This record gives sequence, C-alpha cells and structure tokens, in this order.
Amino acid sequence: MTTVATTFHVRYAETDAMGIVHHSAYIIWFEEGRSTFMRAIGFPYSRVEESGYYFTVTEVHARFLVPARYDERIRVETRIDELKSRGLTFAYRVLRDADDTLLVEGYSRHVCIDHQGQVRRIPPHLMDVLQRAMGSLMT
Amino acid sequence: MTTVATTFHVRYAETDAMGIVHHSAYIIWFEEGRSTFMRAIGFPYSRVEESGYYFTVTEVHARFLVPARYDERIRVETRIDELKSRGLTFAYRVLRDADDTLLVEGYSRHVCIDHQGQVRRIPPHLMDVLQRAMGSLMT
Amino acid sequence: MTTVATTFHVRYAETDAMGIVHHSAYIIWFEEGRSTFMRAIGFPYSRVEESGYYFTVTEVHARFLVPARYDERIRVETRIDELKSRGLTFAYRVLRDADDTLLVEGYSRHVCIDHQGQVRRIPPHLMDVLQRAMGSLMT
Amino acid sequence: MTTVATTFHVRYAETDAMGIVHHSAYIIWFEEGRSTFMRAIGFPYSRVEESGYYFTVTEVHARFLVPARYDERIRVETRIDELKSRGLTFAYRVLRDADDTLLVEGYSRHVCIDHQGQVRRIPPHLMDVLQRAMGSLMT
Repeated sequence: MTTVATTFHVRYAETDAMGIVHHSAYIIWFEEGRSTFMRAIGFPYSRVEESGYYFTVTEVHARFLVPARYDERIRVETRIDELKSRGLTFAYRVLRDADDTLLVEGYSRHVCIDHQGQVRRIPPHLMDVLQRAMGSLMT
Repeated sequence: MTTVATTFHVRYAETDAMGIVHHSAYIIWFEEGRSTFMRAIGFPYSRVEESGYYFTVTEVHARFLVPARYDERIRVETRIDELKSRGLTFAYRVLRDADDTLLVEGYSRHVCIDHQGQVRRIPPHLMDVLQRAMGSLMT
Repeated sequence: MTTVATTFHVRYAETDAMGIVHHSAYIIWFEEGRSTFMRAIGFPYSRVEESGYYFTVTEVHARFLVPARYDERIRVETRIDELKSRGLTFAYRVLRDADDTLLVEGYSRHVCIDHQGQVRRIPPHLMDVLQRAMGSLMT
Repeated sequence: MTTVATTFHVRYAETDAMGIVHHSAYIIWFEEGRSTFMRAIGFPYSRVEESGYYFTVTEVHARFLVPARYDERIRVETRIDELKSRGLTFAYRVLRDADDTLLVEGYSRHVCIDHQGQVRRIPPHLMDVLQRAMGSLMT
C-alpha cells in the first residue's frame, strides 16, 4: 500500500481561543495530505483538473484524539482506502512528528465529476496510476 | 425538539477554485450553528467557557449533497441529537434558504472538559438548560 | 455618502491562541462588508461577476486598535473611498457593536478586470450605481 | 540582513471562485514567513509566548501583483525591516518559486505586549537575537 507522508508546522492562524488547533484545520490538512499523495504518485491533482475532472468531496469524517499546538511539526499520512470506477476514498492519520503521537484520523470520500458536474468514470490513464498506488498494497 | 436556525450569506473567501463553497467551510458553519443554538437557549458558549468548561470536539462528520455558491443565503438548522452526563452530540442541516434545498448534513460530538483538559460532568445549571432544549422533543 | 453597515457574531474559528480574533479574519470581514455594500446599493457582486467582470484586489491595509473576542457582535461599516474609471477603493471601520468601540480600520483597492484578466473600464450601468452611492456624499 | 525563505505548496482551500489564491491567504503566509524567520534565528515564536510575551499585530499591508494558483510552489522571503525597543516590523516578498515571479509584497507591524496586554520592552535576550538578525544587514 502506498502511504504518502507530508510534514509542515502548525500555523498560528490555525489555532483557536482554546490554545489548540481548531478542528476545521485538520480537514484542510487532509486535503494537503491528498494533494501531496497525488503529487507523489505522479498525477498532481492540478493535472486531474486540467484533464477536465474534479474529485468532488461527498463525505468527510474525523476523530480528534489529541490536540495539536502552534509551531509543532505535523505529519499527515495519506493512503487510498477504496477505489471504484467513479470515485475513491482517502484515509488519513495526522501525527505529531516529534513523538509519533496520533492526533486525528479520518477519511474523505470523493466522486469523479466533469466540469459540468456530471458523475464520470475515472479516466483510464488516471485509474492506472491510482490502481498502481493501491496495488502496491499486495506486493 | 428545539431546532435553532441561523442564516447568513456565503462569503467569497469560503469559495474555492471549483467555483463552489470549500467543504471545510461547512465545518465552520456547523460551529456557527451551535453558537447560535447556545445563544438561543440562553447559555451562550462564551458563558460555558467563563464557567470553566469547554465542549471540545471529538468527532465531526459531514455529507455533501449539493454545493453552495457565493452570496447565496444559507440556513443552518441545529439541534442536540444526544445528551450525556459528560458530553453531547449536535446535528446540523445546511440549506439554501431561497428554496430549502438540503446542501449538507452532519454532526459533531463533544466532551465536556475543564481548562486543565480533564473530562468533567456537564455542570447542573448548564445540564438543566440543555435538557430543557432536548425535552421540548417530547412536548 | 452611502455607508452600509453589516453585523454578525465572531466565530470561534476566527479566534487564535491569544484568545482574540486572528488579524487575518478582519480582511475577510472587509470583504463581507463590501459584499453587503454591493447588495445594499442594488448591484450584488455576484452580478458583477455574471456581467463578466471581477473587482480584483490590488492592495489591502488594516490598522488593528482593539481586539475582538469570540461571540461579540461585530459591525462593519463600508463605504467607497475613491472611484475611478478602472477601479475603486473601499474603506472599512470594524466596531464592537455593543459599545461602538472602533476595533480595526482599513481599506482595499480594486481594479476592474474581465474574465481573461485584462484591465477594463467599469461598465456604464455599474458605474452609474457606484457613482450614485458616492454622490450621496455631496447631497 | 538576514532574510529567511520558506517554501510550501498552495492549498486548494486557499483558492477562491476566481480560480486564484484568495487575498486573505497571503496575510497568513506572511505569518508563516515570520514563524519560519523566528525559528531560523533560534528563537521560535512559541518560545516568545512561553517567555510571557506576544508580538501583537498592529498593522498589515499587502500589494497584490500576480495571482498564485493551486499547487504552485510558493516562496516567502521574510526579514526584519525595523526594530524598536517595544516593537518591530517584518517585510515580506511572496514569489512563485518556479520562476521567481514576485506575486505579493507587504509588511506587518508588531508591538511587544505581556499576557495582560500591556506594552512592554522586548526582553534583552530576545532583543539580542533580533538585533543580530538585523545587524547582519551591515556586514
């Protein structure tokens, strides 16, 4: 299974009055995780859009275990959890990089649509790349 | 059941390059929904914090059905879905106010903690107010 | 002079670890101010875009005087400060609505471009509406 | 002069319905720039706060020259522009890393306050570090 990790520091703007990272920031970090994932497997999401498709978000879920704080180094680990002809699910683990503490885990479901908003099959050349990323699961 | 509605316009900053509202914005609108809910039942969340407690978010889930767009009037309907001694769950429906189209639905789970981060029972005076908001379910 | 006011409550997501509203939130509130302004003068910005134009932001400035806090009611007062054939400047005052304390003041400069990004004259029907909003300055 | 550069990719959440990065995102990137600056000179801003101080933002200014787009690699160059006993000014240049195109430039002014909000002199050990970062200007 291809799992792609990306690291970055918590931004001050991502904290809230509780002194911790606001829960909505992790949803954006999930997205950062899948952007890095797509770049890493050789098909950046910007290219998906240039090809005429979007992976629109149909569902998102997150469980918050331990809060992150300003300036901590964060690691997001992203993998494809499910791949279908017209969509896919990404799974995420957000960790404090210093000590590997699991902070948040979650997933997001996506449907492949064209620029008119119609549901479409994931085009073959992109599906190949995604399957290879999944397939490495079995090797 | 007490359901509290709040309305506002989509902000341009909440849109993304797909021309629609970014999915993370709905998570913040959920929060706006429960802020309005708490204010409406007479115990603003700012007072919860002044009393020494937080309702920390432990889980969030959203299903995205129809996209919202800039300047549309949005209505968020919020209610308490479950109330326990140490936490509660809010449920949300996000609608396009003009035609009542359901755009997004979801929930968030919360645990009552004190300012040291320890899980605590919801204090009695606040529990009374929350139960009354739930109780109207039965009347 | 037409000054348009809009009010809303501070969102928890807009606060930061200092316990106050993050300075970037005011930039988004400025935008909220000019969205309300355009709606109030009868030419919503969504209509500007439908007409084939954008008011792209070329400059923004803000001075932060007093911090806002979660759940406070905020009032943004917006007016056109300067109107030219190819652009305009909006000026903003952000106040705590409860006691009229001035929190932040600032401005944003905009240039009228078409959807290809070319600088264009503000179209006559829109210019009329904007001039009337300015002109009330002199009456 | 010590200029510290930091690079990252544009997040999808930072784009707007114009298809470009929303102007408020650059204000957060400025902050990312000064976080990296403080870390690079050996006095992370998290340590400033632990020492009992904040660099509260009193003013921000940005000029937007060329828009950034999703997934582009961005470089923020940050330096101290002015250093006084009770505050300082950071200056920023935001560039498209691929071809060094200058996208945005701006500054932010800060005052040193304690946790009670009182204006204070920058403490000597921190001032030393900041002066050294400035001083390299002359070498």
